[in-house]
Amino acid sequence: MKRVDRDTSIENIQIKPYKKDASYSYTLGAFPTYELILSRPDEVIKVLVHSSYTDMVGLEALCKERNISLEVNDKLIGKLSDKDNCYVAGIFKKYSCQLSKERPHIVLVNPGNMGNLGTIIRTIVGFGIYDIAIILPGADIFNPKTVRASMGALFKLNFHFFNSFDEYRRQYGRHDIFTFMLNGEYTLNIKDCPKSKLFSLVFGNEATGLDDSFLNVGTSIMIPQSSDVDSLNLTIAVGIGAYVFMNENKIYK
Amino acid sequence: MKRVDRDTSIENIQIKPYKKDASYSYTLGAFPTYELILSRPDEVIKVLVHSSYTDMVGLEALCKERNISLEVNDKLIGKLSDKDNCYVAGIFKKYSCQLSKERPHIVLVNPGNMGNLGTIIRTIVGFGIYDIAIILPGADIFNPKTVRASMGALFKLNFHFFNSFDEYRRQYGRHDIFTFMLNGEYTLNIKDCPKSKLFSLVFGNEATGLDDSFLNVGTSIMIPQSSDVDSLNLTIAVGIGAYVFMNENKIYK
Repeated sequence: MKRVDRDTSIENIQIKPYKKDASYSYTLGAFPTYELILSRPDEVIKVLVHSSYTDMVGLEALCKERNISLEVNDKLIGKLSDKDNCYVAGIFKKYSCQLSKERPHIVLVNPGNMGNLGTIIRTIVGFGIYDIAIILPGADIFNPKTVRASMGALFKLNFHFFNSFDEYRRQYGRHDIFTFMLNGEYTLNIKDCPKSKLFSLVFGNEATGLDDSFLNVGTSIMIPQSSDVDSLNLTIAVGIGAYVFMNENKIYK
Repeated sequence: MKRVDRDTSIENIQIKPYKKDASYSYTLGAFPTYELILSRPDEVIKVLVHSSYTDMVGLEALCKERNISLEVNDKLIGKLSDKDNCYVAGIFKKYSCQLSKERPHIVLVNPGNMGNLGTIIRTIVGFGIYDIAIILPGADIFNPKTVRASMGALFKLNFHFFNSFDEYRRQYGRHDIFTFMLNGEYTLNIKDCPKSKLFSLVFGNEATGLDDSFLNVGTSIMIPQSSDVDSLNLTIAVGIGAYVFMNENKIYK
């Protein structure tokens, strides 16, 4: 049995509060941990549960079914979580993915904030986009803050890192490119969203947006907004773009 | 001169880190402080600046023009801000507003999170909605966290608190009501957004949404989303609703 083969004593020694270069990360809270177990069972190292967790039976059954170790360990949960009300955590191996060549993509150029990145992942999965490209440098997709903000939606999509937009573009040449920019040439209104069967929606960093070189890589798009704000929040811009393009083009999984 | 009349010694003694029942609050950072001075000059008690702030000349000129006291006070800025890189703060009196009877509203029923509330304010001002009703209990609109997340957009809109949705409705009976609910009867697609010259978009609490009694107060709206997420983030839902309704109905300030 798989459970017996695992050397849990070593795992116990190794698991520490998250660092970017660690080979593992973790979910905090029952909801994202369930998402982890259901979507990426092969990556789970073990599930931790607090002795005062009230819904142990269901979790125990699921872990048993998936051959995943379940360990009551109040001290380790306390060490990993900065909140008092965390009763479940899932330790998982970092993994890599490839993006689909047949489905729409979101491309984030140098996203800076882990909370935003997680919220963006939750949002685009909500609108049916399951592939995200991140142009480095960028916020750490495996940081527990990102995982938490994604509400576990991270485990439902494919992500891949690229060192430049050109590197991304060379691998995915068939996608129509739409770059979201404050000085975009095409104003995004609900009555005339561009039609495309295969598209990439590209967004810049929270503070700096996309530089002007992105005006020429595809169709540049401006979400209309009043002059009373400096710009929209990045997660809102991605949410609007994903909703409008998916709704117009009726692409479903 | 107004500046001379102000008893700044008393102000110095009184200003402490924010509490909900204080009669004043403050902006942290240059951008929201400029928004405060430009939009609500009469509410400003004084502007604080750190001795190492590099753009003193412009700020000094603006404060002089508006008869606002400007005080170099590194210690007080440090006490009010939890970040090291805050160089400007604006202390202002809390104030009240009335909502317009002629313009669209956003209604938040028991919003729980100050960051969300601030981001929602920034977003709706971005889409041209300048009136927000908050059904109590709700997150504190004047907390510096809310002000910061709004990027100063708070100072550009009208807000008002109500003890119940019924109390709001009695005062604003002419608005068409649209309630955003996961079990809403009307699916919001970009090709058939409801038409309305005067509307209120109503959203529930982050965790609980709107209860089923809201199915019958107007038209209930569901933003289509995949089954792979539990729900959309509240700020995203408000952003989509505000964008689509304002875009469809072409209502501008």
